[in-house]
Amino acid sequence: MRSVSIIGVGTTDFGVLPDMGLKSLASLACNRAIVDSGMDRKEIEAFFLGNYIGGILEGQETLAPVTACELGLSKTVGCAKVEGACCSAGIALRMGYLLIASGVHDFVLVGGVERMSGASTAKNTEALAAGMDKDMEGYTGLTFPGYFGLVANRYMHEYGGTVEQMGMVAVKNRSNAVKNPRARFRKETTLEEVLNSRLITDPLKLFDCCPIADGGAAAVLCPTEIAHNFTDKPIEIMGSGHGLGHNTSYAMDGPSCTCTVYAAKEAFDRARIEPSDVDVAEIHDCFTIAEIVDSEDIGFFARGKGGPAVEEGLTQVDGRIPINTSGGLLSKGHPVGATGLGQVYELVRQLRGEHENQVKDAEIGLAMNLGASGLVSTVTILRRD
Amino acid sequence: MRSVSIIGVGTTDFGVLPDMGLKSLASLACNRAIVDSGMDRKEIEAFFLGNYIGGILEGQETLAPVTACELGLSKTVGCAKVEGACCSAGIALRMGYLLIASGVHDFVLVGGVERMSGASTAKNTEALAAGMDKDMEGYTGLTFPGYFGLVANRYMHEYGGTVEQMGMVAVKNRSNAVKNPRARFRKETTLEEVLNSRLITDPLKLFDCCPIADGGAAAVLCPTEIAHNFTDKPIEIMGSGHGLGHNTSYAMDGPSCTCTVYAAKEAFDRARIEPSDVDVAEIHDCFTIAEIVDSEDIGFFARGKGGPAVEEGLTQVDGRIPINTSGGLLSKGHPVGATGLGQVYELVRQLRGEHENQVKDAEIGLAMNLGASGLVSTVTILRRD
Repeated sequence: MRSVSIIGVGTTDFGVLPDMGLKSLASLACNRAIVDSGMDRKEIEAFFLGNYIGGILEGQETLAPVTACELGLSKTVGCAKVEGACCSAGIALRMGYLLIASGVHDFVLVGGVERMSGASTAKNTEALAAGMDKDMEGYTGLTFPGYFGLVANRYMHEYGGTVEQMGMVAVKNRSNAVKNPRARFRKETTLEEVLNSRLITDPLKLFDCCPIADGGAAAVLCPTEIAHNFTDKPIEIMGSGHGLGHNTSYAMDGPSCTCTVYAAKEAFDRARIEPSDVDVAEIHDCFTIAEIVDSEDIGFFARGKGGPAVEEGLTQVDGRIPINTSGGLLSKGHPVGATGLGQVYELVRQLRGEHENQVKDAEIGLAMNLGASGLVSTVTILRRD
Repeated sequence: MRSVSIIGVGTTDFGVLPDMGLKSLASLACNRAIVDSGMDRKEIEAFFLGNYIGGILEGQETLAPVTACELGLSKTVGCAKVEGACCSAGIALRMGYLLIASGVHDFVLVGGVERMSGASTAKNTEALAAGMDKDMEGYTGLTFPGYFGLVANRYMHEYGGTVEQMGMVAVKNRSNAVKNPRARFRKETTLEEVLNSRLITDPLKLFDCCPIADGGAAAVLCPTEIAHNFTDKPIEIMGSGHGLGHNTSYAMDGPSCTCTVYAAKEAFDRARIEPSDVDVAEIHDCFTIAEIVDSEDIGFFARGKGGPAVEEGLTQVDGRIPINTSGGLLSKGHPVGATGLGQVYELVRQLRGEHENQVKDAEIGLAMNLGASGLVSTVTILRRD
């Protein structure tokens, strides 16, 4: 397996973008990534586009070839939409990584996109629940806020975690987003505001939940050995992992998304580093409790210590392991199919030394993208070349 | 790149299966493929599942990890749904092939599934149209029957093709299906019946159009060098191609789906054979005109000669190049996301010498799977080992 690098990234703003269609969002992000890479788009050999509910919400499928035509890619490009709920873009990146690492392709474009603001809250809730196993839990009416409410209660029960610890995740991420022009919410919030916000699903309040968003994000990959031909600041993909979890919440064994444990192990094994070597991370904070659980599943903190770590400031921009310096899903918004590459976009800026909340001397970054109710996860480890 | 073989295949019947849910169809086909391979399912390293409109029609996405859990695959399996309209399963197969050929994985499960009979004709028509570029042609009301009606008219205009030639495709395929227990329609039809059937979109009549269906199909792949450890009759994947077409019908340059031309070229180049070397083919006859155009795009016949070839009987089971000996989509039905692997299932039976319409001494088979309105295509070439 040869080394793979990111030579270009692109994103749209994440937010309510009524004038942008699904294809336009995907195309804009991809086009920006291609331009950022400086490469000839006709040399792109494969294109993987993550998207989750474009069929249900927008009536648009087959989005990868449609977008490829819009972008003017070669007619010999192999393209496909890949889907794994909120982890769709993480999987798209993984596909590109594997096909270059193994020598099949030299240049791969990976993207992710979602358009959600055109649908009502009820319709979005229904569409998002398509990630539940319909035969098992879908019919019970369990939604993702409900699922993460269960996780939060279990976390409090097992480890004595508190709603204040969860609230502090929101306060931190909202504070980080103030400087991030790509974020949907750029206003600070206080712990009191979080705790007093409307109850959504016990114990999660409104500000414990990420907002929906429209958005797209993309990256161009090539072998590391030629990456310097295109950019002075290539970012190497040191490791990639992909794990499977459970299709029902009653199969859960404690407050953990075990798919992330498997994905992280694979990624760290490939990268030959430890969690403590990571300088900055963007992880899947669809709900405040998710960031805490993720941080333990990845191995940044021991079981039950992710909550206290937030309280101690260890995940702040200047902390031991800065988490979601972009503002995370909680502030940027969560255009589901785009999120995984939105994280990578933020990390590439960090590792290029260009981020609005720059972590000093950041050399190694980690992106972690979770799909559905702990069903599927990807972890990607990046390094400044 | 190392050689890859199919060591197991599985399918459900294709038809109206009201008692089977989407996950059940996928799981049954995959389980049959795993059992057919004789391998330990825990050794499967990746799982790609083709599905097109399970989100729109059934409200179920994230189907690959959901099915992986149902099947009891390893928690380290990398799985994703892949989508490219009617070409989804062809793309799933392609992903598995590339990741084994390049040495990333040793064992990959690929599947495809669709459930359509639970929805009304109107809902199916709307859902299927999600493969059109919404911004360009979706809003014009053009559907797939409409698109292939345009192709048929252009074919008649350019080459003097006739409705009788198209009708003979239906007669042939329906006749082939009589012996195929997996087909939805197993009753012969006459040219007169086809020509007198209800007009759908000029010049296509009802019997020129494939029926919807529920169904799943799957295959297990591994390196050719170890395939004989699992089966006496492994089937080698000699070549694979993937091409991009146009997102609007006005970009069409004559009655051809150019994505297939690119996909076929790549597949034949990898296999190092010519179209004339193929002994049996399953190609995408979603409409009778499609089989004719496909047969020219692949290179079985010169431009304008695909129609006359049907008239001359060259594509019959005992003809020069037997096409759709299974009955094709026109008779088996077209469970969209499953079709590409349904074709491969039929070819594997042919190359194992076990098909109901066995082609004598069949050694090389070709599957061709088309997505949307000539937007994306895959071609796979198989050989008896």
